Amino acid sequence: MRLRNKPRAAGEIAANPQYMTTTPMDFKGQWQRKFAQKQPLSIEVGSGKGRFIVEMAKAYPERNFIGIEIQPSVAIMILEKQLVEQLPNLYLIQADGGDLTDFFAAGEVAQVYLNFSDPWPKTRHAKRRLTHRLFLAMYQTILQPAGQLQFKTDNRGLFEFSLISFNQFGMQFNELSLDLHADDAPDNIETEYEQRFSQMGHPIYLIQAQFKASTSDQPATDR
Amino acid sequence: MRLRNKPRAAGEIAANPQYMTTTPMDFKGQWQRKFAQKQPLSIEVGSGKGRFIVEMAKAYPERNFIGIEIQPSVAIMILEKQLVEQLPNLYLIQADGGDLTDFFAAGEVAQVYLNFSDPWPKTRHAKRRLTHRLFLAMYQTILQPAGQLQFKTDNRGLFEFSLISFNQFGMQFNELSLDLHADDAPDNIETEYEQRFSQMGHPIYLIQAQFKASTSDQPATDR
Repeated sequence: MRLRNKPRAAGEIAANPQYMTTTPMDFKGQWQRKFAQKQPLSIEVGSGKGRFIVEMAKAYPERNFIGIEIQPSVAIMILEKQLVEQLPNLYLIQADGGDLTDFFAAGEVAQVYLNFSDPWPKTRHAKRRLTHRLFLAMYQTILQPAGQLQFKTDNRGLFEFSLISFNQFGMQFNELSLDLHADDAPDNIETEYEQRFSQMGHPIYLIQAQFKASTSDQPATDR
Repeated sequence: MRLRNKPRAAGEIAANPQYMTTTPMDFKGQWQRKFAQKQPLSIEVGSGKGRFIVEMAKAYPERNFIGIEIQPSVAIMILEKQLVEQLPNLYLIQADGGDLTDFFAAGEVAQVYLNFSDPWPKTRHAKRRLTHRLFLAMYQTILQPAGQLQFKTDNRGLFEFSLISFNQFGMQFNELSLDLHADDAPDNIETEYEQRFSQMGHPIYLIQAQFKASTSDQPATDR
């Protein structure tokens, strides 16, 4: 937390409600009003400096995008990009995405992106990993039936955990790469972090998976 | 195929029916008679030179093991190991394991091992991969309810394919490593191939997964 920057960040965010909010619960179920057009909504949980969500919004004008970033001093870097770009299909949230069901209505989201999420390597912190089943249940609630989740990371332990977590939650794997940058992946939009770490020779892992359309297929047990 | 060796191999196999057969269909449903004790049966499909299955049989005397190898000239290398070891819980099959349901009765097997199977990289050969759903259906038939499958490979493309294949077949992932030799895995028994390729710096991938106890959970569609 770069608290030093916080007052400036808060001011800048407050001055630009057309692009960013700190009170997303106020717009639950009504996000489409934030955009020029009503289009399928994709969200990124943990947008960092925002390269991914900004480039996605540019690449897919036929979709709407929301980037969520918890740290004010980082979130304003995305805001500053958007002040330049003024993309009509991009909106930003500076808030803790811990309970997304407070921010989004059931079925309001078409796709969830997680990029290079905090690995929380200690077992006792497993519940904080954004691919833990506690989070998967939230994504499933806010996603449309058979909604998509895409996850990228360079952290092997987190990716192993996530594959098991997605599988045991009953999600269907659609695409998977264990070395994305060695594949022919022309549509891949890199995050700032991804650019830096792939240059260091780390493989980048990717999975696209979807929730089952019917929740009745899900395991009832608390695994 | 080292046809040159075939006559010698055939003679050596025929001379040792207590350790190896070329007509496994004759013993379908009665494999326990081949062993000193009636114990849970594990099979390896594609045993190569046999290091894995021989070492497994030594490490787990409370289980029975069958190694299956299609090539006679390779299969006799396992037989020659067993002529030295004379393990009471190891039996060998030299035959094409293409349809295991001809060799094993429903529920006769407790665990299936696949190690460094042929990747068949061309898409048009996907059905030959031993982790294709056509093979998974056979493993499920011969396995006990909730039977286990363990798969190791250094081939990234095959592992990616296999994770999706297992997931879409409705299998549950229990263990997974994307770099087995970097993990603390004291129980790992290496194949000859694994020893060679891990020294070259290839990551070794592993998954342990199980079939759903009830077949009704499986996807009915032909994906």
